Amino acid sequence: MPEPYWTAERIDGVVSERAKTLGPAVWAAAQPEARPVISFAGGLPDIPSLPGEILLKAARTVIDREQKEALEYGGTFGAYPLRQAIAERSSAIEGIPVAVDQVIVTSGSAHAIGVVCETLLDPGDTVLVESPNFPGSMRTFRTFGAHQVAVPMDDIGIRVDRLEQELQKLADNGNRAKFVYMIPTHQNPAGCTLDLQRREKVVELARRFNTFVLEDDAYGELWFETTPPPSIFALSNGDHGIKVSSFSKILATGLRMGWTMGPAPLISRMATVRYDMGTSPFLGRVIAETIRNGDLDRHIQNLRKIYLRKLERVEAALERYCSGYCTYLRPQGGFFLWLALRPGLTSRDVQQAANERGVVVGQGPQFFADQQATNHLRLAFSYVPMEDIEEGVHRLGEAMAEVAARSAVK
Amino acid sequence: MPEPYWTAERIDGVVSERAKTLGPAVWAAAQPEARPVISFAGGLPDIPSLPGEILLKAARTVIDREQKEALEYGGTFGAYPLRQAIAERSSAIEGIPVAVDQVIVTSGSAHAIGVVCETLLDPGDTVLVESPNFPGSMRTFRTFGAHQVAVPMDDIGIRVDRLEQELQKLADNGNRAKFVYMIPTHQNPAGCTLDLQRREKVVELARRFNTFVLEDDAYGELWFETTPPPSIFALSNGDHGIKVSSFSKILATGLRMGWTMGPAPLISRMATVRYDMGTSPFLGRVIAETIRNGDLDRHIQNLRKIYLRKLERVEAALERYCSGYCTYLRPQGGFFLWLALRPGLTSRDVQQAANERGVVVGQGPQFFADQQATNHLRLAFSYVPMEDIEEGVHRLGEAMAEVAARSAVK
Repeated sequence: MPEPYWTAERIDGVVSERAKTLGPAVWAAAQPEARPVISFAGGLPDIPSLPGEILLKAARTVIDREQKEALEYGGTFGAYPLRQAIAERSSAIEGIPVAVDQVIVTSGSAHAIGVVCETLLDPGDTVLVESPNFPGSMRTFRTFGAHQVAVPMDDIGIRVDRLEQELQKLADNGNRAKFVYMIPTHQNPAGCTLDLQRREKVVELARRFNTFVLEDDAYGELWFETTPPPSIFALSNGDHGIKVSSFSKILATGLRMGWTMGPAPLISRMATVRYDMGTSPFLGRVIAETIRNGDLDRHIQNLRKIYLRKLERVEAALERYCSGYCTYLRPQGGFFLWLALRPGLTSRDVQQAANERGVVVGQGPQFFADQQATNHLRLAFSYVPMEDIEEGVHRLGEAMAEVAARSAVK
Repeated sequence: MPEPYWTAERIDGVVSERAKTLGPAVWAAAQPEARPVISFAGGLPDIPSLPGEILLKAARTVIDREQKEALEYGGTFGAYPLRQAIAERSSAIEGIPVAVDQVIVTSGSAHAIGVVCETLLDPGDTVLVESPNFPGSMRTFRTFGAHQVAVPMDDIGIRVDRLEQELQKLADNGNRAKFVYMIPTHQNPAGCTLDLQRREKVVELARRFNTFVLEDDAYGELWFETTPPPSIFALSNGDHGIKVSSFSKILATGLRMGWTMGPAPLISRMATVRYDMGTSPFLGRVIAETIRNGDLDRHIQNLRKIYLRKLERVEAALERYCSGYCTYLRPQGGFFLWLALRPGLTSRDVQQAANERGVVVGQGPQFFADQQATNHLRLAFSYVPMEDIEEGVHRLGEAMAEVAARSAVK
């Protein structure tokens, strides 16, 4: 049998500029680990509460009631009943009227962000990105050839003075930002939630500089005890805010379903540029049914309690095993603790020492556009089984102690 | 309340070049018609045989057996058990060994074709396209800035002499085609199936000119009495053929699930360029279960009988009501009859006269890259209820008679 002509090297020679930017590395599914690992790495939902029965019940109802509509094409905006259910539910949550034509269904929020890029970005366009941030989104912006300008955050969130400076600088050069990308609520990785005053300032800046705020809200509904301030989308009256949301964290990442709300003419353009003929109307109608029958809201209420318990357990363990080595701000929701290591400890060293003890955490540099060295670690407390939390943080503490001892010797 | 800032006009001013190419028109879901219509327009599956119960049964099994894997991220290649089931099943169908790393799962074949474009195309690249062809694919090529060269077909399919000429012409100019797009089996819209001799010639040309054949096989498994020749993918030993397939026509368009097979290094690049974090592992595992438990194959056998019966009914009605006005070649499978109208009848006139009688058909020009005027109509016989076929063709015959009478008067 002849050798195949299309080797990896030959393929490298013919791929698009976009594919070249990305390189050959692939994000496949997690491989089974050789030894048991306690993972604080991925922003994944709690396993025991996964809503299989809720989905099966809704699927049964959908097939009985509307099999034809569920199993036929549903258009590029997504299944109408889901858009309708989202619009109604969001009107209540956001406190502004949200119309169906302001809603588009996507394959999760990652896809939504990609479709926003397809709709708005040409190579060389500028986007502003709060920093640190979610690496997956920064990767997407990069592959669309965007010039990313990092805007720093403090403990409250994005620094609006620096945001104004950057927007003004662009305007002075006759340029503009296509959008400002931020995660104002339960930020990934930093865990902080932007206060109302800064949100209002962000909206004012978006208006003044005629740009959009691309508001990633994957974690917004997962607050623990305090409801977050109104969204940028709501504060802009649905005009300058593009809010990207997902069913991944409130139902299941394995559905690949999310939605975006924004100005109707922009949503319409997003429906046009996609080439996937829309997201599954079957899954869309199943999720619409979980909204209608109240299961989604009940499930979210349950998740809030579960994640608060996990956070409390992580906090207790951090207090016991890591208190000399790091500090953090308590998040009001979401999946993440952003640990600031004490001077002398680098995230790289601690991550490695933790790995050797069978504990995985997210390392700081991946969350910065310039991959700068940091003394931060991201601890996702959502996925790890309740009973493994103490042991995992215990080992993390040992790793910190070891690195501290080594650095003291030097 | 102030007027919204982001009007359609302002949005038009800030969208990407890609969005500008597409314009604001949107393909939404079919709107309910004001009066009952008999539709031969869309390539949609038969309604009464939609497999809701098959899917629910498989979903129950998947949730019971593997809820965690089904409801978590599954990676950008798609759920592993589905890739495995596709590789095994395809090895049997194709007659060559197909490995798991040659398979990627996508949101239907439309999405697969888009991902191939993302992976291979830069603006200005050339693709060859058999003509007539599926408008959705030509639209996608256009939005990626591809230069499309039409290669004509005859009753057997693509003219390989003309294909060779075009490839040679490109080579003479130091250029090359990134791929040749074709639907060799039960072609859309023409209904023809390329014979083995020409398929072998296509593979030989792809090898000689170092290009790919992007083989759209949405309808390949829906043969009626004659199994089609081996695919281009199989004949090229999986090396120069990229075969794009879909569960849309053999299960349901509402799943938005399909798959692509090709050289492993190219499949790997496709997994990298997509930004949707993969297709739903829940749906993927549900479909894998329908393959494993035999339901998919049984369903396809049932569909072959249904579509053959519909074809026979359409043929009988055409014989009765339209025989003086058009001719066609009998398709060996798929969803479409490609009617050649007799001289003097244009597709536009007949379509309009049919519409006035409550019958919808696909008009010829949309299937040509240059939208040239034609005397062809596409009749999709798959979707229309069995009991409406005779009445629909009857009205179409009246429409043809009316247009013929009008043109005789002129």
